[in-house]
Amino acid sequence: MRALTVEPRRAASARVEEVDAPVPGPGDVLVEGRLVGVCGTDREIADGAYGAPPDGRHRLVLGHEAVGRAVSAPDGTGISPGDLVVPIVRRPDPVPCASCAAGEWDMCRNGLYTEHGIKGVDGFAAELFTVAADHAVVAPEALGDLAVLVEPASIVAKAWAQVDHMAERASWRPQVALVTGAGPVGLLAALLARQRGLETHVLDVVTAGPKPGLVADLGATYHTGAVTDACPAPDVVVECTGVGAVVLDAIAHNPPGGIVCLTGLSSGARTVELDAAALNRRLVLENDVVFGTVNANHRHYLAAIQALGVADAGWLGRLITRRLPLAEWEAAFRSGTDDVKVVIDVAA
Amino acid sequence: MRALTVEPRRAASARVEEVDAPVPGPGDVLVEGRLVGVCGTDREIADGAYGAPPDGRHRLVLGHEAVGRAVSAPDGTGISPGDLVVPIVRRPDPVPCASCAAGEWDMCRNGLYTEHGIKGVDGFAAELFTVAADHAVVAPEALGDLAVLVEPASIVAKAWAQVDHMAERASWRPQVALVTGAGPVGLLAALLARQRGLETHVLDVVTAGPKPGLVADLGATYHTGAVTDACPAPDVVVECTGVGAVVLDAIAHNPPGGIVCLTGLSSGARTVELDAAALNRRLVLENDVVFGTVNANHRHYLAAIQALGVADAGWLGRLITRRLPLAEWEAAFRSGTDDVKVVIDVAA
Repeated sequence: MRALTVEPRRAASARVEEVDAPVPGPGDVLVEGRLVGVCGTDREIADGAYGAPPDGRHRLVLGHEAVGRAVSAPDGTGISPGDLVVPIVRRPDPVPCASCAAGEWDMCRNGLYTEHGIKGVDGFAAELFTVAADHAVVAPEALGDLAVLVEPASIVAKAWAQVDHMAERASWRPQVALVTGAGPVGLLAALLARQRGLETHVLDVVTAGPKPGLVADLGATYHTGAVTDACPAPDVVVECTGVGAVVLDAIAHNPPGGIVCLTGLSSGARTVELDAAALNRRLVLENDVVFGTVNANHRHYLAAIQALGVADAGWLGRLITRRLPLAEWEAAFRSGTDDVKVVIDVAA
Repeated sequence: MRALTVEPRRAASARVEEVDAPVPGPGDVLVEGRLVGVCGTDREIADGAYGAPPDGRHRLVLGHEAVGRAVSAPDGTGISPGDLVVPIVRRPDPVPCASCAAGEWDMCRNGLYTEHGIKGVDGFAAELFTVAADHAVVAPEALGDLAVLVEPASIVAKAWAQVDHMAERASWRPQVALVTGAGPVGLLAALLARQRGLETHVLDVVTAGPKPGLVADLGATYHTGAVTDACPAPDVVVECTGVGAVVLDAIAHNPPGGIVCLTGLSSGARTVELDAAALNRRLVLENDVVFGTVNANHRHYLAAIQALGVADAGWLGRLITRRLPLAEWEAAFRSGTDDVKVVIDVAA
């Protein structure tokens, strides 16, 4: 079968090649691949900057945002042949930490997890893949190909679940949200903010392309410029750029009791001069919260399916700005100016 | 009656003087002053760096950590003449914000609160003071003069309540705590950490004086040096120094899922060079939480009384390293090398 593989930590090593079809172990679902989404982590791995192959191998099947159709599944798993299946990216180490043992592999404490298509286990950019049945969720038929958005939506479902928990430390509830960055994660974070009934502002750098319209059609407000111009007093900031200056601006410019949720990652170093004492004073005197969140566990995938299920399908469809066959994976990995989410059709 | 007063924002204006005895309004408790504790905020106000007098006046009665005995109290308040009374520092604005309206004035969102002895209302360094009955708590007789520690203990009771809430975002529970700074707040934070059964480490700069022994007698470990030397993997850091470099070290050196609770304040600017992108990556990839906490509300005063009530009275007594009569307030305001908490006996 065909798969998109890479030798992690070696630039320009990615290619589509014929590999052996995976053999499902006990407890595994065999899935016919349909779509995989491309994200910054995939590009980093293809660039040789990140990733690890399975033990004893040099190459890794790429792809971790995926949807496919079950070919076979063990009895009693609730998964039947033909079901639309979304695999879960992270798997706990066989000797799990306290978080992983409790099913919260997204909160792993020892870093020994593996991640399909990223670290130690094959991904889903293949005509067939296997995944443990307890690490797969069934998406409703109505979602169809949009189920490729479940994985990025699971990231923001976790982020908002954590924000909701943080907010409960006080008696009042957030009413105004600022999302920094209008990529797929930022736009999905804005969708969930609107679903929570929040006045929502989204900040990005582009003035053209689909992003301003996508934000407007959520009933949110699109901004460019500085964090402080976008929204002077957000109760919650969901930071999706990872850019150091934006992160610090978000922390320094919220109202008392503000919550800053960090989800973005940027590579490289970015040294800034910072008055650490002043930043500390602000956090203390305003009871501010800053926290990071990464990955998602089983319940966040279910929450993501729920959130996508009640969203406007037309709007979700517009997030997928390009869809390319597997053979054209290189074009898919090049970011276009007007791209939100690019997906690869592994069956085409 | 005698009171320690100051003209806020004017250095060297503090003095003990004769002032009119306060007249309790409806709902007020009249209290005979007993002890007031001196903290960094009092010193800042005496130095002219902070504070505000009541409307229409130039001078403010100082003192916000206090214990006294009720002289009179309105019926139905649960306070009787002779009761040991601890007044609550912060009062909501008459037009309260959402937090203040819910009794969480410690989480005030508009900054319009007042604070006895600090901002807009007289403090408690006086032979008599009044306080609203719903802003006073009765301490058990067994606590006696140690009830002067209720206010600083309320700060750490709130801090730990917030830490406990943050910890509940994950399935595991913290087991190792690092407290940075062994002043009164740090030592009380360590006391509450031990009461929670946590392995507790305390970091300070001094090697002599009472602090190492106070920490050891809690069953905690005393450290000097760098944050990373003190405790390489604290699940929780309660930061009580406000020193920028310590704050950043605490944030940068905890294990995945670490919680850093900021309680300390330092004055002035402290510019550092910081790789903001790397700090952000760490927070995101490790699901770390950093939050600030200030002040305390009614339930935290009750929690403080509870925590002090089950602590060793001898240990608590050693926190009070000097006790001076009101006339010697200037000596009390000068920090001694071996001081933990200095208190002023307003009746002596």
